[in-house]
Amino acid sequence: MKSKEVEAIFQPRKVMLVGSSKIREKVGMTSPKLFKNVIYNMRKYFVGETFIVDIHGKKGFNNLKEVPATPELAVIMLPPEESVQQAEKSIEKDVKALVMITGGYNRSQRNKLLELRKEFGVRILGPNTIMGVINTENGLNTTFERDLMPKKGRIAVISQSGGVGACLLDWACHYKVGISKFAFMGDKIDVNDVDLLNFLDQDSQTKVICLYMEGIKNGRAFIETARQIVKRKPILVLKGGVTAEAAKRAMSHTASIVGTDHVFNAALKKAGIIRVETLEELMNAAIALEKQPPLKGDRIAVVSNVGGPAIIAADALAKQGLKLASLQKQTKVYIEKTYPGVDATNPIDLIADARAERYRQVLNLVLADPNVDGVMVINMLKSCFFEPKDAKAIAETAMNYSNKPVVDVPAGGEDFELIHKVLAETDIPLYNIPEKAAKALKTLREYGKILEKISHSL
Amino acid sequence: MKSKEVEAIFQPRKVMLVGSSKIREKVGMTSPKLFKNVIYNMRKYFVGETFIVDIHGKKGFNNLKEVPATPELAVIMLPPEESVQQAEKSIEKDVKALVMITGGYNRSQRNKLLELRKEFGVRILGPNTIMGVINTENGLNTTFERDLMPKKGRIAVISQSGGVGACLLDWACHYKVGISKFAFMGDKIDVNDVDLLNFLDQDSQTKVICLYMEGIKNGRAFIETARQIVKRKPILVLKGGVTAEAAKRAMSHTASIVGTDHVFNAALKKAGIIRVETLEELMNAAIALEKQPPLKGDRIAVVSNVGGPAIIAADALAKQGLKLASLQKQTKVYIEKTYPGVDATNPIDLIADARAERYRQVLNLVLADPNVDGVMVINMLKSCFFEPKDAKAIAETAMNYSNKPVVDVPAGGEDFELIHKVLAETDIPLYNIPEKAAKALKTLREYGKILEKISHSL
Repeated sequence: MKSKEVEAIFQPRKVMLVGSSKIREKVGMTSPKLFKNVIYNMRKYFVGETFIVDIHGKKGFNNLKEVPATPELAVIMLPPEESVQQAEKSIEKDVKALVMITGGYNRSQRNKLLELRKEFGVRILGPNTIMGVINTENGLNTTFERDLMPKKGRIAVISQSGGVGACLLDWACHYKVGISKFAFMGDKIDVNDVDLLNFLDQDSQTKVICLYMEGIKNGRAFIETARQIVKRKPILVLKGGVTAEAAKRAMSHTASIVGTDHVFNAALKKAGIIRVETLEELMNAAIALEKQPPLKGDRIAVVSNVGGPAIIAADALAKQGLKLASLQKQTKVYIEKTYPGVDATNPIDLIADARAERYRQVLNLVLADPNVDGVMVINMLKSCFFEPKDAKAIAETAMNYSNKPVVDVPAGGEDFELIHKVLAETDIPLYNIPEKAAKALKTLREYGKILEKISHSL
Repeated sequence: MKSKEVEAIFQPRKVMLVGSSKIREKVGMTSPKLFKNVIYNMRKYFVGETFIVDIHGKKGFNNLKEVPATPELAVIMLPPEESVQQAEKSIEKDVKALVMITGGYNRSQRNKLLELRKEFGVRILGPNTIMGVINTENGLNTTFERDLMPKKGRIAVISQSGGVGACLLDWACHYKVGISKFAFMGDKIDVNDVDLLNFLDQDSQTKVICLYMEGIKNGRAFIETARQIVKRKPILVLKGGVTAEAAKRAMSHTASIVGTDHVFNAALKKAGIIRVETLEELMNAAIALEKQPPLKGDRIAVVSNVGGPAIIAADALAKQGLKLASLQKQTKVYIEKTYPGVDATNPIDLIADARAERYRQVLNLVLADPNVDGVMVINMLKSCFFEPKDAKAIAETAMNYSNKPVVDVPAGGEDFELIHKVLAETDIPLYNIPEKAAKALKTLREYGKILEKISHSL
């Protein structure tokens, strides 16, 4: 199993942190503070054993050979030359994997690492991974930002870039997005997208895989691997270096060979990978896929307590290639009879005084309607009678219709935050404007189509 | 002056609030609580005199004729029939304008209001304005959401829809967007887009005008008016009811006659109005236009402390039709000589250890470069040495180049909030991902082109 080989990167029981309390080196980012912060995070979160190897210090061990155990993983954060030396020494401790944090390696230094890979089978993440890895299951956290630990969840993120990865990680922590694994790939001289995809495919904690990439080195293997995985787990890709000038930059940034965007797009389509356009869309799409089932059709009902945002929602759905569902006559008549004044023509306006009970009743009817494939709920607080606790009714009702996705739009600023507090831990994805919810539904439809295509071709 | 006529809506010295502490009527939204909340807001914020007229109560006056003054404005929040009666009575008090909060008026009730307009010249906002008006200058606030008062600023918002307006208002309050005036138009039987545009054109507090509309009733006047105003102030429009199904809904929602989107787009273009696609884009574009000058060319420099997000920025700029500026050779050489390791090929990577001083120096050089029309700064905290207070250098440097727009991207979740605390009160627009900053620059370029076109046609 290919995935077994990289297990040591995410699931070690014992870890060595190899750094220096003295060396400060700008470009590669070695620094005593960085070392100290990684130690802090590991001690705070990691459930296994951590051994500190400070090659210039008095605390911990001065030499990794002194470590009285056989750690599966060594995290090395020194300037390139010293890092390579430590990597070589770690072989004698029988480590299975290396996470090489710093950058600035020359060709000869890279080759030395690759020899370790060839001769001893040790797997290498990086160099230039910057932030390394996170596993929320066992608390492994090699990032040098103190307390930057996302909550446990089912979204895995792989980033080729330290900066983009850090941005996504900051986003996930701030908005409480549930994460299973986080990996910063860096220069990927050994462990690459394919290895990580295979590992995440087998990882029972991961339901959705997000990838930021600037280029593929082994296109065919990547596509073949992804095509198998998407049967079980959706893969989302954000690509940097799409335009000619950005691509030139990506080459010097992570030594990526960037093909034309046209070729890349065709490859993703073939693989059944869903492409997103922005960092925020990547997170928003992942949240939708983590929490809700794929959309089996195009017909969406909008259930709202405000008129204007429902109209914006209808526009946004059409822009995403989705349709406003035509409710069955009996559904429409029943709603309008039960709630005089409510216009049950989709988008359905429940009127500003709708509270939990009206949402519950109408959502039940709409979700049971065979003409409806999915629902966008809009529930504003400002200018309405709706109260944050009423939002629970949405999550409770949606739970009974596990085949039809429901997304929610507490439109605005404070309104979003207030409802987020109530629904963040439920399976309802939340978006602060209808346009983002429409894109999320589009993603759920895309994954639905990918699954349909696969089942047809079987 | 047309604009004089609606002055009383925004700049009254004395205001009557006419409601009932007893009537609760669902559809039109009359309720004692609503009445109480409007009174609360007016008492808290309004610097002029407020007179309470409770047609069923014991507090305040029972009859507006008892009010011992001549208020210029009456805000009426009763069911349609009672509202019309009070509107008629208010004429005897010589009011200049009426804000009609509630909805549900039939044709005959509307006609009665229009007769007041014709016979006595009183101007009428609404009915169905829901939240009425806000003027941050004099504290006028007729909304029924307690404490919902945006900070003073130069962005005016006109919304045809109560829900969309409430969402934008909530957004503005939450993200501390500076607002001059807020008006909910509702059914616009009298005061319409053209009246409000003319008023805002004359309003010295307003620099940018945002409009959410579902339809235009007087297209030619609207275009001609806008065409004059955009010479002085940019106008942004978000249109609801673009697609056929949403348009049908908009007709019943605010009685709008919605033309085809094609025709609408052509009209906006002719008028020099900038169209945006989402609620968030409307706010983001307005902030850019409020704080920064228009872009006089397409050439953007990206100055970043992280590699990957800078590549995403380069892609995003290209998608918006902007170009990566080619720095003058001397600029590039000077930067690279001063900061070894920094690659000054645009997008410029200042490397993770860049602090205030490096940003200041490089921004100075880049903004002085004649090959650069505008700058997107990216400054992440996570995975970098940058600290929130360093961001001041960006605002201070940008101030010296008032002809070239600068926008800033503290990419991520917490990172954005931390920098927002430091820069929110400055003239630097902030965006949480590079893609939004690129769109904002695109808007600044659009307005630049509109101004160029006008100056050519003079």
